[in-house]
Amino acid sequence: MKYTKLFGKPSKNKFRDLESINAELLIQGGFIHQEMAGVYTWLPLGLKVLKKVENIIREELNKLEAQEILMPALQSKEKWLISGRWDNVDVLFKLPSQTDKEYALGATHEEIVTPLIAEYVKSYKDLPVAVYQIQTKFRDELRAKSGILRGREFGMNDLYSFHRNQEDFDAYYKKVQEAYFKIFARLNLDVKMVEASGGDFTKKYSHEFHVLTSAGEDDILACENCSFAQNIEIASLKDGDKCPKCGSVLRIAKGVEVANIFDLNTKFTDAFKVKYTDQDGSLKVPLMGCYGIGTTRLVGAIVESSHDEKGIIWPREVSPYDIHLISLASRDEKINNDILQKTDNLYQELIARGYSVFWDDRNKISAGEKLKVADLLGFSTRILLSEKTLVKNKVELIKRNEINAKMFDISQIIDNL
Amino acid sequence: MKYTKLFGKPSKNKFRDLESINAELLIQGGFIHQEMAGVYTWLPLGLKVLKKVENIIREELNKLEAQEILMPALQSKEKWLISGRWDNVDVLFKLPSQTDKEYALGATHEEIVTPLIAEYVKSYKDLPVAVYQIQTKFRDELRAKSGILRGREFGMNDLYSFHRNQEDFDAYYKKVQEAYFKIFARLNLDVKMVEASGGDFTKKYSHEFHVLTSAGEDDILACENCSFAQNIEIASLKDGDKCPKCGSVLRIAKGVEVANIFDLNTKFTDAFKVKYTDQDGSLKVPLMGCYGIGTTRLVGAIVESSHDEKGIIWPREVSPYDIHLISLASRDEKINNDILQKTDNLYQELIARGYSVFWDDRNKISAGEKLKVADLLGFSTRILLSEKTLVKNKVELIKRNEINAKMFDISQIIDNL
Repeated sequence: MKYTKLFGKPSKNKFRDLESINAELLIQGGFIHQEMAGVYTWLPLGLKVLKKVENIIREELNKLEAQEILMPALQSKEKWLISGRWDNVDVLFKLPSQTDKEYALGATHEEIVTPLIAEYVKSYKDLPVAVYQIQTKFRDELRAKSGILRGREFGMNDLYSFHRNQEDFDAYYKKVQEAYFKIFARLNLDVKMVEASGGDFTKKYSHEFHVLTSAGEDDILACENCSFAQNIEIASLKDGDKCPKCGSVLRIAKGVEVANIFDLNTKFTDAFKVKYTDQDGSLKVPLMGCYGIGTTRLVGAIVESSHDEKGIIWPREVSPYDIHLISLASRDEKINNDILQKTDNLYQELIARGYSVFWDDRNKISAGEKLKVADLLGFSTRILLSEKTLVKNKVELIKRNEINAKMFDISQIIDNL
Repeated sequence: MKYTKLFGKPSKNKFRDLESINAELLIQGGFIHQEMAGVYTWLPLGLKVLKKVENIIREELNKLEAQEILMPALQSKEKWLISGRWDNVDVLFKLPSQTDKEYALGATHEEIVTPLIAEYVKSYKDLPVAVYQIQTKFRDELRAKSGILRGREFGMNDLYSFHRNQEDFDAYYKKVQEAYFKIFARLNLDVKMVEASGGDFTKKYSHEFHVLTSAGEDDILACENCSFAQNIEIASLKDGDKCPKCGSVLRIAKGVEVANIFDLNTKFTDAFKVKYTDQDGSLKVPLMGCYGIGTTRLVGAIVESSHDEKGIIWPREVSPYDIHLISLASRDEKINNDILQKTDNLYQELIARGYSVFWDDRNKISAGEKLKVADLLGFSTRILLSEKTLVKNKVELIKRNEINAKMFDISQIIDNL
């Protein structure tokens, strides 16, 4: 992709009137566009990040033998009445229609997935089973805030698992925790898992996953040294106490909840009368767990925890483009043409080798301006060609998350990526 | 994927009470699950088809330098008032909220994309530009019918292009037509393009793309011989007339509209005051086109036009799995174990070579039952291993769309795919 062709170019104006860093940087960079409070369009650059995040989640969940499905946003009121949540979830959008039927607009999918399981799971041989989706959710928030951290329409990955017994459930619950930490590691996110009290579910236990950042809405009591953390709502300890795990000091910090997992036991499988025939011929109710990661929220959390005063620093695996190519102009037209020609050659060769490449191909734009845009956009790796580098037949390689540039022969740059 | 692990197994029961062949076969096969009238869950097998259809569209549109974005379903009432369509589109869902704000639930996206373009297109240098999305649409249909051909919630690919002048627009409009025919060819669909009168748009012209099938809702006057076709609503000719193009006979046939394209001229760019500075410094309003393909509807149209009395016949490019492996049981336990072992080896090798493979690994199931399921599911290529084939060290290769099986040495089957 060439800069001059990109739809959704970065803006020179800072959006400092916004209430959150993720919104400021993502909007200025041309990653997202705000349509209304809590509602965004994903522009080409932002959508690339979002899809990479989604695919990382897919890869890790597929390893758990979870199968991807796609459930609808339009949901039957009757099913929400059966679960008892039609009148209890205050953020549930209720949609009238010309057929006089009223729909719920999916804020979550227990009401859909549980009766679905009831139709396909009949025998103990069909268990355990886990299905997931990556889908758009709607929540009628009184106040949408914090950029893409809390929207009225947002992307989510929700996974649901069903089991014959507690032991099988517990093992899977543990596996999902591990998969989540693999996902967070690939996103370069430092995440704390905390025990939590939990919303409108009756359950044995639940866990939240928090990225510690000042943009967070939750108070987390976290050890300064080890992985110990508790949500302040249920914490038995307080700021300044000793960590029960390592003896270090506990401090209250702000956390963005990027995921949560619940042991639902038979709350929904009872309500929707899910029964399977066990090996001994008896009818039993499966145990259920649900596991959710906010996909759009993760993008926001990455920006909150990985930026500097110049712009975003995308982790390599979710950088919209692998390479940001920069050709600096020369006042000498012949030299300038040579720079453009060599950059174009490198551009084509990188693409032929399978890299995704973004080339700032603007002519007669200052080095300062091009570098400023590159810092704002924050793609993980940058290659710069200029009169100064090419006179030595070299190019400059800069990682967004490192300070020093390295010089390589232009013929050897690809092998050094 | 092994049959025994699949979530959403095919059913032995035919669903003959449904009103359409696509719903009957897709539901019986475990591709989709009906949640309510016009609302479906996409099960693992169906979602694979849908994603392949989406990716074919992506590939062909990316060649037109269209850029993918993702716009929201929640849309501002104010924008629909500006376009004058808030009270004029009878299928528009209107969503109340606890903040007293009322939303439109996206039935189409002209009201979102046009002001978006206004923010990013300022100069003639920013034109032409084309953006597209693959996204979920909502329509408050009085009667949802024909399976996934007309739903209340459905997948769509919508492309919008903006141009400096009619010549540039016309050239792009033509390019999109060609891209659409490439997409249909990859889906093995025989599609007629017809001139059409057009819905609620004021426009110079529009075209519809119809798959001719008895499940269609539209009457199309089509030449028996050549590509000439007209929508009966605007046709100047009638059934039995001579084709003006080739002299053959015109016949009325039923068509499923899988796509449509519109010359919107300045209808929306005027309404949303989109203006760019032209080369001569004057302010001008860009011309706009919109182009839509129903992604979920395409899946239904493929089933309508590509099935036989036994089940679906997926075109190779959208077959959920490349290979359907069938191991037939033997009553001799030793031979049976040998069959399972050899099938497992082939399964692993095919996957290692990059094929997606579905193995009907059920034990003690009759050949008749396994073949019946394979016919119903309709994956494009089938490999069968049995006592009879393995005694000769061979396997049977069957294409779903061909009559005769071919025998190959088990060691050479992969090279013959």
